[in-house]
Amino acid sequence: MTDSKIMNIAKKRGYLWSSFEIYSGSAGFFDYGPLGAILKNNIIEKWRNYYITHEGFYEIESPTIMPEEALKASGHVDHFTDPMTECKECMEVYRADHIIEAVLNKDVEGQEDHILTKILSDKQIKCPKCGGPLTHVWSYNLMFQTLIGAKGKKTGYMRPETAQGIFIPFKRLLRFFRGKLPFGVVQIGKAYRNEISPRQGVIRLREFTQAEAEIFVDPKNKTHPKFNNMAEDILTLFPSENQLKKEKTERINAKKAVEEGLISSEILTYQLCLAARFLSDLGIPADVIRFRQHLPTEMAHYAIDCWDVEVKTDRFGWIEIIGIADRTDFDLKSHGKHSNEDLSVFIEYNKPKTVTKLVVKHNMKKFGPLFKADAPKIINKLEDLKVSDIQKAFKKEGVFKIEIDGKNYELSPDIISFQEIEDIIRGEKVIPHVIEPSYGIDRIIYTVLLHSYTEYNGRSFLKLEKGIAPIKVAVFPLLNNEDMVKIAHSIKDEFRNQNIISEYDGSGTIGRRYARCDEIGIPFAVTVDHETLEDNTVTIRNRNNLKQTRIPIKNIYDVLKDLIEDNLNFEDI
Amino acid sequence: MTDSKIMNIAKKRGYLWSSFEIYSGSAGFFDYGPLGAILKNNIIEKWRNYYITHEGFYEIESPTIMPEEALKASGHVDHFTDPMTECKECMEVYRADHIIEAVLNKDVEGQEDHILTKILSDKQIKCPKCGGPLTHVWSYNLMFQTLIGAKGKKTGYMRPETAQGIFIPFKRLLRFFRGKLPFGVVQIGKAYRNEISPRQGVIRLREFTQAEAEIFVDPKNKTHPKFNNMAEDILTLFPSENQLKKEKTERINAKKAVEEGLISSEILTYQLCLAARFLSDLGIPADVIRFRQHLPTEMAHYAIDCWDVEVKTDRFGWIEIIGIADRTDFDLKSHGKHSNEDLSVFIEYNKPKTVTKLVVKHNMKKFGPLFKADAPKIINKLEDLKVSDIQKAFKKEGVFKIEIDGKNYELSPDIISFQEIEDIIRGEKVIPHVIEPSYGIDRIIYTVLLHSYTEYNGRSFLKLEKGIAPIKVAVFPLLNNEDMVKIAHSIKDEFRNQNIISEYDGSGTIGRRYARCDEIGIPFAVTVDHETLEDNTVTIRNRNNLKQTRIPIKNIYDVLKDLIEDNLNFEDI
Repeated sequence: MTDSKIMNIAKKRGYLWSSFEIYSGSAGFFDYGPLGAILKNNIIEKWRNYYITHEGFYEIESPTIMPEEALKASGHVDHFTDPMTECKECMEVYRADHIIEAVLNKDVEGQEDHILTKILSDKQIKCPKCGGPLTHVWSYNLMFQTLIGAKGKKTGYMRPETAQGIFIPFKRLLRFFRGKLPFGVVQIGKAYRNEISPRQGVIRLREFTQAEAEIFVDPKNKTHPKFNNMAEDILTLFPSENQLKKEKTERINAKKAVEEGLISSEILTYQLCLAARFLSDLGIPADVIRFRQHLPTEMAHYAIDCWDVEVKTDRFGWIEIIGIADRTDFDLKSHGKHSNEDLSVFIEYNKPKTVTKLVVKHNMKKFGPLFKADAPKIINKLEDLKVSDIQKAFKKEGVFKIEIDGKNYELSPDIISFQEIEDIIRGEKVIPHVIEPSYGIDRIIYTVLLHSYTEYNGRSFLKLEKGIAPIKVAVFPLLNNEDMVKIAHSIKDEFRNQNIISEYDGSGTIGRRYARCDEIGIPFAVTVDHETLEDNTVTIRNRNNLKQTRIPIKNIYDVLKDLIEDNLNFEDI
Repeated sequence: MTDSKIMNIAKKRGYLWSSFEIYSGSAGFFDYGPLGAILKNNIIEKWRNYYITHEGFYEIESPTIMPEEALKASGHVDHFTDPMTECKECMEVYRADHIIEAVLNKDVEGQEDHILTKILSDKQIKCPKCGGPLTHVWSYNLMFQTLIGAKGKKTGYMRPETAQGIFIPFKRLLRFFRGKLPFGVVQIGKAYRNEISPRQGVIRLREFTQAEAEIFVDPKNKTHPKFNNMAEDILTLFPSENQLKKEKTERINAKKAVEEGLISSEILTYQLCLAARFLSDLGIPADVIRFRQHLPTEMAHYAIDCWDVEVKTDRFGWIEIIGIADRTDFDLKSHGKHSNEDLSVFIEYNKPKTVTKLVVKHNMKKFGPLFKADAPKIINKLEDLKVSDIQKAFKKEGVFKIEIDGKNYELSPDIISFQEIEDIIRGEKVIPHVIEPSYGIDRIIYTVLLHSYTEYNGRSFLKLEKGIAPIKVAVFPLLNNEDMVKIAHSIKDEFRNQNIISEYDGSGTIGRRYARCDEIGIPFAVTVDHETLEDNTVTIRNRNNLKQTRIPIKNIYDVLKDLIEDNLNFEDI
């Protein structure tokens, strides 16, 4: 299985390690080793390049610890739960839905606790370990809880997603963007999920890295100004209808997907295309990627449309690595309500609207003398009523009768009249909708490693894309000859001076060194040999096709930069 | 006060915001806003460039949640505490040492709880708020505690420092570096400290970012191969002796500081110089920086030498922004002991050592027949004893008498004899020492903002270094003219295509736009004006001296890159 091969290499070569190994480990936690951390940084840098530099979004960084109020508002305190059951005999704890699925081969995800309890009991499902009876099902909150401060013991949680940290300072963000929609804000960082029993390696972590963008848009305008750039991009879609009808995925271009209503909006489709381009840039082949739409039963109640970017794996089947959703105004509305803050945006119309409006006119000359101190009360009361209702009653009875605090007043035609006036409305307050692409960085790294792995002549290759490979170039002396060693070292140093991560390797045969390079995923190797000592040329070798060519040392730095930045093909050196 | 001016700008312009403001905030937590996050990323990128690309260290990333065992080993469960006291009347909680310092103006940091309790009682110190009596002093652990997993409820903590995550996988790291010292490993990430009552803005955070390097060295070799590159660097040192004698700091070059023994080793001095160069590269002037050595009473018991890099602030006085310590073998020893793992390194001698060694030879032909089944027991016993002791007794008595399990044996000269043999020793196992530069990234960002702030003609300037400024260039149309607007937008877009973060600004007068740029810290501004429409040239303005010059649009991208990378002076455009 490719999974176990790549995980072995990942461990051996310093990409991924189980955390806290010397203390017998802790499930659901992984270390990025020396190569894994650079790979991760390179992928995040590329993500920033896409979303910040090119899309024009801005990043923020909010705390990973959040006070309870904020997560109460977001719904996580009440609803971020898994259904649990415990064996009454061996005390082992399980996810109730997983046990049921294993026994009945039936998807019961999202079912309520009492229904799961009933299934466990009706179907007489027992503890998978000892056969003992299981308890009723209860909701287990997946957030790591802690206490903030010594005094008062304020409850806090490790954030379950980075998104909430963007919604909370929305008012400040809106001011930064000068009050105008649309704008996009991203956050990259740790999120936490206290899984009951994580058993899927880096796929299900208790602490993981998300890169999320929240794009705040006018609910009435979900077009995208740059959609044309993406219109011809081909997407492999798996719409909910196809899933329900047991049909296959379909390959369709972005424009058509919008026109046919497969995806709910242009802006959401644009985000799907952007994700596809990003993954392709990481070297993940298009044929292992599909966009699966959430089924109506699966989608959050507030969402309009939601697509998971899924990738094919041999061990876990299709796994979600990115989720792209139209979350509507749910989050801002909820935070607005809980915090009593106005999180709306004033959206100016292109042209101010002129509307005719029926108003009540008071003849103040008579109004005051007639009602004296009661006059303001009456006017206030009139303002609370619908003008059309007043007019209706007035027309029917010839006067308008009104009762305030048990006292009756009659407004006759010489006191009030009705008039249609023109009113200019410049815009309106709306709660923006949110388009959210949410990337699971750890799963993307797993996918990158998995789909970079190939074998050739019985040897392992990690064909990492040049741009994200941790070490860009290895430098070898052909022999353990003092001059060759010295030159090789100086070439390695000069690469580093030019901000290219390079490594020197002088141990073992040259063949073994190439093999090590290939397994680590170093795209290029430079070898100093006898000819180098004569004419200052070196060989450069391309990992992906094992071809070599010879060039002067002085050119090697620019050549390598051009190769990495795709400004030069190896064949054209 | 510059502090309040810069914090106002930081809030207004999107550098730093108090977190969770709409939920009344939470002390000790800050958000990096849209400009703050880029500034932070740029500073971290520069740090990586120093420590990873150029020093050749590797980064790892370990979890922020750690199981209790690991932090028991590191000493944090028992010793990462602050002394607390509570008012018996108003229930307010205080740091006992801070209260005593405020009243007696005496530094009692690090004193034991019972001593602080005695001082509170002897000096009749009362609650600063209500005058009520204070409780005895107890130790309050500063780690945020949580529980990992649903079952068993394993205690975990948010890590108090990133360093521990490097010590724990030491064996894997050592293998990655092929078993050879020295090597350096860094980690950049969140660390947590549940302060009792943080009241110093971004200076004392409950969640903060560290960048730490752990450099594992042979305890017998604390030189540095590249020390010569730093030998002439001038450092402002404040040795512990000068502090005790109430003397001033001294400016001295690195070489002399080592020769005079002011700093304990070459490698530690090298790290001081590297920190100084890094800070200078961030635009922090040398005259607000000093290296303060820990006083003998202040230094951790296991450390050999420790220097704080301190920076001068108007609000907080001198504050520590970096700590550089020789932590010896304390951490690895402690983790080795608690985990029962061998965390030593085999250090090969340059030349194998030949030693003569006295051994006991047994005449097995006689030994076996004589002692039969007891023979192995006797041989084992002999091996447990010191050969020289056996020889001494043997010489004295002519035989060697030995008692095992109450039975006596006599070894005569025909059964044992003594021989000197030559033994070759290739090296020895040692626990490496650790040199640790530990950077407080949030404090560095505060320092950068603080010391970038200047005023000129009543206007605010944030003279951020070009390399770390969040937005590199602003593009303006001089007038709200369709052609100028279009060209300005296309220039802005082209900068972004070339991976340079640029912004368009068309609102307000040109003077106001420049002022906004200056306050945000944008180093360059490009203006499209009437001449642009005629000859395709634009003006470029340098924030730092307000000078402008005119260049063709087509050159602007390369010129800007060269300016940012310091390959071109503005005067030479």
